Amino acid sequence: MSSRPLPVVQRVPLPQGTPEYEALRQKYLSELEASIPDEYYLPQSLIDNPPRDVTSVPRECGILTAEEIDITENYDATALAAAIASKKFSAVAVATAFTKRAAIAHQLTGCLVEYFQGEALERAKALDEHLEKTGKTVGPLHGVPISLKEHMPIKGHYTAVGFLDTRHIDDYDCQMVAILRAAGAVFYCKTNQPQGIMHLETVSPLGRTLNPHNIDLSAGGSTGGEAALLAIRGSILGIGTDIGGSIRGPAGFCGIYGYKSTSYYLPTKDFLVGGFAAELTVLCSTGPMGHSLRDMDLFCSVVKASNPHIEDPALIPIPWTGTATAPKTTPLKVGIMWNDGAIIPQPPVKRALAWAKEQLETKFPGKFEVKSFVPYQAAEAMVNIRKAYWPDGGNAVRAHLAATGEPMFHLTEWVLKDAVSEEELPVSKVLEYRVARDVYRQKFVADWNAQDVDVVISPVFVGPACEHETAFYWNYTALWNYLDYPGVVFPTPIKALKKGAEDYAPEDATPLSEQDKHTRELWAKGDFENAPINLQITTRKYHDNELFGALAALQEALALP
Amino acid sequence: MSSRPLPVVQRVPLPQGTPEYEALRQKYLSELEASIPDEYYLPQSLIDNPPRDVTSVPRECGILTAEEIDITENYDATALAAAIASKKFSAVAVATAFTKRAAIAHQLTGCLVEYFQGEALERAKALDEHLEKTGKTVGPLHGVPISLKEHMPIKGHYTAVGFLDTRHIDDYDCQMVAILRAAGAVFYCKTNQPQGIMHLETVSPLGRTLNPHNIDLSAGGSTGGEAALLAIRGSILGIGTDIGGSIRGPAGFCGIYGYKSTSYYLPTKDFLVGGFAAELTVLCSTGPMGHSLRDMDLFCSVVKASNPHIEDPALIPIPWTGTATAPKTTPLKVGIMWNDGAIIPQPPVKRALAWAKEQLETKFPGKFEVKSFVPYQAAEAMVNIRKAYWPDGGNAVRAHLAATGEPMFHLTEWVLKDAVSEEELPVSKVLEYRVARDVYRQKFVADWNAQDVDVVISPVFVGPACEHETAFYWNYTALWNYLDYPGVVFPTPIKALKKGAEDYAPEDATPLSEQDKHTRELWAKGDFENAPINLQITTRKYHDNELFGALAALQEALALP
Repeated sequence: MSSRPLPVVQRVPLPQGTPEYEALRQKYLSELEASIPDEYYLPQSLIDNPPRDVTSVPRECGILTAEEIDITENYDATALAAAIASKKFSAVAVATAFTKRAAIAHQLTGCLVEYFQGEALERAKALDEHLEKTGKTVGPLHGVPISLKEHMPIKGHYTAVGFLDTRHIDDYDCQMVAILRAAGAVFYCKTNQPQGIMHLETVSPLGRTLNPHNIDLSAGGSTGGEAALLAIRGSILGIGTDIGGSIRGPAGFCGIYGYKSTSYYLPTKDFLVGGFAAELTVLCSTGPMGHSLRDMDLFCSVVKASNPHIEDPALIPIPWTGTATAPKTTPLKVGIMWNDGAIIPQPPVKRALAWAKEQLETKFPGKFEVKSFVPYQAAEAMVNIRKAYWPDGGNAVRAHLAATGEPMFHLTEWVLKDAVSEEELPVSKVLEYRVARDVYRQKFVADWNAQDVDVVISPVFVGPACEHETAFYWNYTALWNYLDYPGVVFPTPIKALKKGAEDYAPEDATPLSEQDKHTRELWAKGDFENAPINLQITTRKYHDNELFGALAALQEALALP
Repeated sequence: MSSRPLPVVQRVPLPQGTPEYEALRQKYLSELEASIPDEYYLPQSLIDNPPRDVTSVPRECGILTAEEIDITENYDATALAAAIASKKFSAVAVATAFTKRAAIAHQLTGCLVEYFQGEALERAKALDEHLEKTGKTVGPLHGVPISLKEHMPIKGHYTAVGFLDTRHIDDYDCQMVAILRAAGAVFYCKTNQPQGIMHLETVSPLGRTLNPHNIDLSAGGSTGGEAALLAIRGSILGIGTDIGGSIRGPAGFCGIYGYKSTSYYLPTKDFLVGGFAAELTVLCSTGPMGHSLRDMDLFCSVVKASNPHIEDPALIPIPWTGTATAPKTTPLKVGIMWNDGAIIPQPPVKRALAWAKEQLETKFPGKFEVKSFVPYQAAEAMVNIRKAYWPDGGNAVRAHLAATGEPMFHLTEWVLKDAVSEEELPVSKVLEYRVARDVYRQKFVADWNAQDVDVVISPVFVGPACEHETAFYWNYTALWNYLDYPGVVFPTPIKALKKGAEDYAPEDATPLSEQDKHTRELWAKGDFENAPINLQITTRKYHDNELFGALAALQEALALP
């Protein structure tokens, strides 16, 4: 238990609310503070003068033992599960290592909103005893720590759906948590998400999440707490949700894996109790975030093997074959989407695309057929999806804010500009959105069929991780939500260079739109050094298995972890 | 070409509209009349004094040759396809037989809205030539005639979505038609559907469809034209749509098979251009109607084998295994739903359920585990689905009627009473409907799991085919739409007896509700003699293959055709 204020690195202050709001906020922050033991506190001097890249702080700060550094740095979830099952590490040792590292991660990036080390250690102890007694693990995730985004209910802990007034303690595990718990997972924290869970950054009443590779950049959002925590290896496996890029954006910003499934492919039951009006047109889906392709695959195979559709009939009962899925055609036809016709991505992103193209063309001759892919009327689709997010005109947002005097954050204001009215739309308008969406999906796929690709590799975002408060354009992720196509973002060896070291190519000299112009201004102004560059791979709706099959085929050529 | 008015049996007059509407209606009726050759006209005396059961008229009227009677009566689609492929019958002979019989069927039941014999014969001739020349069929439906519900677009023919103002000629085949055409199907007519396509009877501006087993009863709706045409064997295979019972109701009323798939299981692209607001909560789905289980299976296997999800990404890419699907458990656990807690079905329906129970318990000991099934809060679900059909308060209906001066039909008035307001609902209300639906689905399945059944056998309707203008209660079909569970209605050997020959059992003496009371009044008043009694079998959402697997297991015990 802590006896003094928890130091957390801050870069840009949070907006202030009413005294009532500030008091409530303080109460939750004090609870979080009290849950983190003093001995995990970083020196105040480090907090005051942090390095820009904080990823090596956990290794160097002296708080973790050599074994804890080994456990948290040299394994993926698959290897960790094997190490626990073979008793190389106890579940307690693993839980200790990750909970300690998560406490450090939080001080550096503001990634947590709840921390329950005691409960995790108790659970780990029970798992160790079970293994000792029976010689068997409880399941394929026996002892594997899993971090949870704040809005996923877990018994005995806070859930909030993006506003302080919604924060409450749940008395049940949601379906996803129950499945993972039954498979042996150890839960130990909840991670930060932005106001309304609708920014591509992560700024909540409880703090702003920084990018561990460069704390002057955003960790992305809305699943930014997970992404930062994973990138600093305070988590080995996490879970996000994504209705416009909320898994893929932060995973891309932080250089880890993130998989947004087709809607109703993986359980989302009770993730948004009471509903979210955007879902009348665009569904939110879920998926794992982590360090390796096989971890992504492990997560999905465990969840799908539990037959979650028996409890939630909305779920599609397609079994998981994942990376074992054989590609239907050879060569695998890979489309490269250089831009969406509205915003040319900033230079390091284009460099990553060019790198991928070269790898595919040169590494395994004949294995891949690489072509340029032009997305069908993507700019028009973006206009439609942005409207479709706010059929209630932002009424629900304003009501939540008013309930506690919570201020409207900058990026909340930004996204609400997309609402066509401050009033709720009538049902005929929502029907129009839905019809437009379906017609677009049919035209898009006809065009996809004509371009004859199996998968498309595209940017994750208009650039590397953005500077704080500038994640304005969701184009490269939201397009796939509008289509409801599954997507995985994966790390590449590319990183953003020192400021000034590269710029737009001559052939990209002309901006495609006002948004493109703005994106160039942000590029000129910003310093993105060391930001990792991920790429995104997508395929047809419901073809999640085929997507993973393609990733397996691409793994060696793209040096995928 | 006809030179005199086409005689069609009438029982209850249609409502009159404005002179403009009547003129438009007359124009379409004249076109239909003109399309049916004089030599297929039944004697006016027969039309004026028809037998109550008209099913044997085609055989006895002298218009069909012996071979045409054989072709239309002694084969199912599967056998017909084989007979054409083996050149036992030419496609022209088959098309001639069915088009002739359909012309007769229309005069007896009012089942058609468009008739294109010439085009069908031309197509059949081309198919015969292809087979002759290549020795091969064009596909598994080579030469099989298929009838189409009016709202399914086919190139060169009228489509309407339930109102006269929407009637227009299409210049394309919708996806479903294109798939079937590529498989060798011969199209020859469009069949009647009710105003708004939202009655459980079939009364359109172009006429009222009568039940061929008893013309004082309704053919059911909304796919009543198909059902009547099939029951009189003027069609060998048809297609319906169902958002509240529109396939299953008429199939049940007319004693044929009807299969409502899980939504997005089979193609519905372009069936409702412009959308239908009810679909924001309850999806419309499609499926075949026909004479045998293997025909239902054939239709689905052909459609799914074409990989329709490549053109319409909304479709679930689960391959069809159908009747070849092995049951997961032995014995097969069959729940019998005696009633829905709101309306006890009329006596012949209960008799059919009791018959099924006895068959299953006695025919193959150990093969089935039969238990009573009580649907979770079905009455409450009915209230919710009825509201959910009309989120626009009926605005679209009134606008369509006003456009041509079309009168509002009796059953349109009846269904619009379910709208909670004459205004369009705001989006937050639709969201509430959607959340209530999802919560209900989750609770229902938890209860289904607790009752531990594989499939449920239930009534199709509150009674046998109803008297005209009395199909008020959709309970037994719409429940499964609210759940989005797949369902097949199948014929039984049970028929309604002579008036007065049976009544409610003593244990059913107390009505469960006002609706139940009303249902008893309709029973006391009506004469349902000779109405076939179908039963319905349903299972979990997306488990359409398992449903057909169960039907295969049940086929012998239930003497299924």
